Amino acid sequence: MTIKLYDLAGENIERRFSPYCWRTKMALTHKGLDFETIPWRFADKAKIAFSGSKRVPVIVDGDRIVADSWKIAEFLEDNYVERPSLFGGIHARAAARFVNSWADTVLNPALAPLLMLDILEHLDPGDRAYFRESREKRLGMTLEAFAADTPTHLKALRNAFEPMRVTLAAQPFIGGNTPLYPDYIVFGSLQWARSIGKTRLLETTDPVEAWRGRLLDSFGAFARNAHGYW
Amino acid sequence: MTIKLYDLAGENIERRFSPYCWRTKMALTHKGLDFETIPWRFADKAKIAFSGSKRVPVIVDGDRIVADSWKIAEFLEDNYVERPSLFGGIHARAAARFVNSWADTVLNPALAPLLMLDILEHLDPGDRAYFRESREKRLGMTLEAFAADTPTHLKALRNAFEPMRVTLAAQPFIGGNTPLYPDYIVFGSLQWARSIGKTRLLETTDPVEAWRGRLLDSFGAFARNAHGYW
Repeated sequence: MTIKLYDLAGENIERRFSPYCWRTKMALTHKGLDFETIPWRFADKAKIAFSGSKRVPVIVDGDRIVADSWKIAEFLEDNYVERPSLFGGIHARAAARFVNSWADTVLNPALAPLLMLDILEHLDPGDRAYFRESREKRLGMTLEAFAADTPTHLKALRNAFEPMRVTLAAQPFIGGNTPLYPDYIVFGSLQWARSIGKTRLLETTDPVEAWRGRLLDSFGAFARNAHGYW
Repeated sequence: MTIKLYDLAGENIERRFSPYCWRTKMALTHKGLDFETIPWRFADKAKIAFSGSKRVPVIVDGDRIVADSWKIAEFLEDNYVERPSLFGGIHARAAARFVNSWADTVLNPALAPLLMLDILEHLDPGDRAYFRESREKRLGMTLEAFAADTPTHLKALRNAFEPMRVTLAAQPFIGGNTPLYPDYIVFGSLQWARSIGKTRLLETTDPVEAWRGRLLDSFGAFARNAHGYW
């Protein structure tokens, strides 16, 4: 049965920019599972109320409902054990938690100021007021103030990728010789940037860019064919 | 046969402060291997010249010589396969690379300014001039200038541990339910701090401190029994 994924969309319904939904899309693709995405916008909270979550990703797999990208990854791993493993064992799954935590607390916050105004620009008009109000309340400042000083934020972002560079000097993927869920976690953040940001954030000579290119091309260029800028 | 480990020592020969040697000591202990440490100081480069390395850790296991903490971990894993696994599989080993890279590029640089003057104070007198000169050349400033503004460095360090906190909210160790090499990587950095720094760097309520306590107590309090302050 085809799995349904509620996937954050912009004004252009094909523009899917959530880093967390990207983790799930790459996981579903890695597992080789049939899925269809249901475009979802911030205004559509009622449409996922059945899941108990106010945020996407949410998947519906038959009569099973799972929200939260990490929980979805574990659900897919534990329920489709005959499919290619997302983690490569229980200890690799445990270590993937660290990568997940790093992306959530370091990488995505480093990206946020660089992307905030791009997100706003690409949101469905019906989402813009909600987005500005909720984020400005959380940040304690205007989105414009948060996004100011791009050069400083860009430098910090590039610096934040340093553990990735050192890792990729030793092996082609965080997963080893082939990509695994930790790769999709980090890649999801860059798909967020690619989907709504016009400016390439990493230098073309950056090993992280080469790794990103390998993931864009994986699974028949699944991620490269998604709506985005670079 | 007992493995020999060249282990960085301070003026007090029992004070062993290298974070990288701590990774190796925990790995050897985890594997349940007999080992003896040979105290080594920066002035003793000639004593490890046989290894081709200018730095410790260096191990000698019969006729096999291995330098570099990561290479040693891989050597122990691949040569003592019947012993408890350090990584828990090839994909967990690959993910451990990321943790290693994070500790090397984020955590240890965040600790360095907080520890620099403590290191100097605890070094063997014969190492002090070398240490100051080599580090000041690398840093482009005096050790005192590098170490200035402790509150800022302490705040940055505590912030750097955030991925650990999120990980430890979900599981007791980076390795999962039991500690594995990624735990020893991060723990090694805190043993560095403990061995020469008089001030506890983390708040007692920090989940990272609870995790550190579990590792201090592991293997019969092996690490807690080492010379240190906290």
